[in-house]
Amino acid sequence: MPPIAPPDTIRRDGDAVVILDQAVLPHRREFRHLACLEEAAAAIRDMQVRGAPLIGVTAAFGVALALQREAGDERLAQALAILGATRPTAVNLHWALRRMQAVLSRLPPAERARAAWDEAEAIRAGDAGTCAAIGANGLALLRQAAGPRDGKPVRVMTHCNAGRLATAGTGTALAPVYAAQAAGVPVEVWVSETRPRNQGLLTAWELREAGIPHRLIADNAAGLLLSRGDVDLVITGADRIAANGDSANKIGTLLKALAARDCGVPFYIAAPVSTIDFACPRGDAIPIEDRGPAEVRLVEGLDEEGRLKQLRLAPPETDALNPAFDVTPARLITAIVTEHGIHAPGALGALHAEHAP
Amino acid sequence: MPPIAPPDTIRRDGDAVVILDQAVLPHRREFRHLACLEEAAAAIRDMQVRGAPLIGVTAAFGVALALQREAGDERLAQALAILGATRPTAVNLHWALRRMQAVLSRLPPAERARAAWDEAEAIRAGDAGTCAAIGANGLALLRQAAGPRDGKPVRVMTHCNAGRLATAGTGTALAPVYAAQAAGVPVEVWVSETRPRNQGLLTAWELREAGIPHRLIADNAAGLLLSRGDVDLVITGADRIAANGDSANKIGTLLKALAARDCGVPFYIAAPVSTIDFACPRGDAIPIEDRGPAEVRLVEGLDEEGRLKQLRLAPPETDALNPAFDVTPARLITAIVTEHGIHAPGALGALHAEHAP
Repeated sequence: MPPIAPPDTIRRDGDAVVILDQAVLPHRREFRHLACLEEAAAAIRDMQVRGAPLIGVTAAFGVALALQREAGDERLAQALAILGATRPTAVNLHWALRRMQAVLSRLPPAERARAAWDEAEAIRAGDAGTCAAIGANGLALLRQAAGPRDGKPVRVMTHCNAGRLATAGTGTALAPVYAAQAAGVPVEVWVSETRPRNQGLLTAWELREAGIPHRLIADNAAGLLLSRGDVDLVITGADRIAANGDSANKIGTLLKALAARDCGVPFYIAAPVSTIDFACPRGDAIPIEDRGPAEVRLVEGLDEEGRLKQLRLAPPETDALNPAFDVTPARLITAIVTEHGIHAPGALGALHAEHAP
Repeated sequence: MPPIAPPDTIRRDGDAVVILDQAVLPHRREFRHLACLEEAAAAIRDMQVRGAPLIGVTAAFGVALALQREAGDERLAQALAILGATRPTAVNLHWALRRMQAVLSRLPPAERARAAWDEAEAIRAGDAGTCAAIGANGLALLRQAAGPRDGKPVRVMTHCNAGRLATAGTGTALAPVYAAQAAGVPVEVWVSETRPRNQGLLTAWELREAGIPHRLIADNAAGLLLSRGDVDLVITGADRIAANGDSANKIGTLLKALAARDCGVPFYIAAPVSTIDFACPRGDAIPIEDRGPAEVRLVEGLDEEGRLKQLRLAPPETDALNPAFDVTPARLITAIVTEHGIHAPGALGALHAEHAP
């Protein structure tokens, strides 16, 4: 099968935006038209688009959709407020909205609609370039891990989905994997299911489309595989990185980082600089989204006839807690890979001085 | 609702054995009659009964079923071999079979059928007593954790199901929780889903029946809760404990032990002495059962009409690895609670000298 073309996750279509609906992936491949601000906000909130970078791109397009008929200061402020409130943890969302605001607030209302589309497109194209640069930088780490392996594949463990589906390019955590494939470096990926939303199935889906060998595991299996020596490196994305390097990512990331540390396996975070929140000093200041108990009580999949169905795992009266992210402290992170290089998690300050928006 | 009477998990019924079918719990409460050796072996293999202690009790009853019509040496050897091959990791299985063999091989065949029933009953009753003793010993640890909490509930985290459903009594890991309830010590339990077989739902079910407050979480959430200070102690069962204290338990236990250590929260294993394999020097010598990819690709639950259904999470061509257990090294275990007391994991030798079978 041919690899997914990066524009598949999101693209402009005339006065609308077309997204690949990730709420029904990997079970169904369906596209949705977003025609207005409210539809863009709902797509982010309901996780039809997810992944910190793609959330940022979608929010930018959401501003463009909002300003099509009316583009005064009040409408702009409303669009920024509605989109900014969709999800609390991913900081790329706010980065993209700040960038839109900086460009649009300078312009007279009559010029804003067109400029918004142009800037959203620029953010989308920029994200694809960022992914490619993260891939090239991360590939050096994969080659390093592959060093003495003599033609055997590099065994990468990841969590959640930080691939093509999470971005407008080749991903963050998976960008080095795609870069390895392109460079002829053999690679195979341990894919964690990532309950409760099972974004690992998205990773398995996109790796299958790309023809990259991978194996699905329950989230619980990560410790055993690491302790057995079956993993050369762990690499995940991030939703928000504090100034000191503490990194919020999908719930369960911390457990993998702890196991990697205990087993002497390097643990990397791969993310664009826009994921770093230089205003946030430490991980404990990052807000953690609670998505409510339903996702833990329910599960979705295909029935015998291939129809997407929901089953109840636990009765509705079961109390459940569903935090969507956890924070991996900088001390457990071997390095953070961005589009600008490979950074010690304690040395992000220099990056701020050079590249902060 | 009244608590489950311990005999509900397994009991003799004339020439047959009745088990509560845990493959359909918590969704349906159904009992199965086991009428012969093959049905007992299948019930263990297919996880209609599960939990190391209950597997041992079921195997003992399986021997009794096997010897009802023909009880010569060959039949006895066959029964021991078939039951011994059902599942590889839980050592209580072999302990119970050795105990049956020791009693029965001394007797003439004509006396074996009746003696087998008697000995299986003794093993069942003994397990209930063992659970009660583990509960009493573990309660001291809960009280210790509760010390400065001043009437607030002790917050216990567990994994998988090591409760009433895993034994013929009040459980191993959950025995101290039931003992706390009986003693009026307020307690609440964090229940991990335990993918891929979701035995956490069994724990939620039995705690609900017993009226003990609990909250269900995705396995991935354990690290965040521990790092936030929301857990006072972690306690799990074990399927096999090596002589040096390394403990095999349900896949995912190791991740909780690592997180507990990192956060300074005590991590306890609760198990009968029959779970200790004194012939096994270290954890890396414990065989780890691989249950095949189907359990990772599929999930079971109730549909809208309350019917038990299976959904496909990942396409059948998805490669998946499904190890059922991992090994927590002794260095991460604060103490091991048995029916005889609270033991440093590195000091099991004394227990061997005093209580080994």
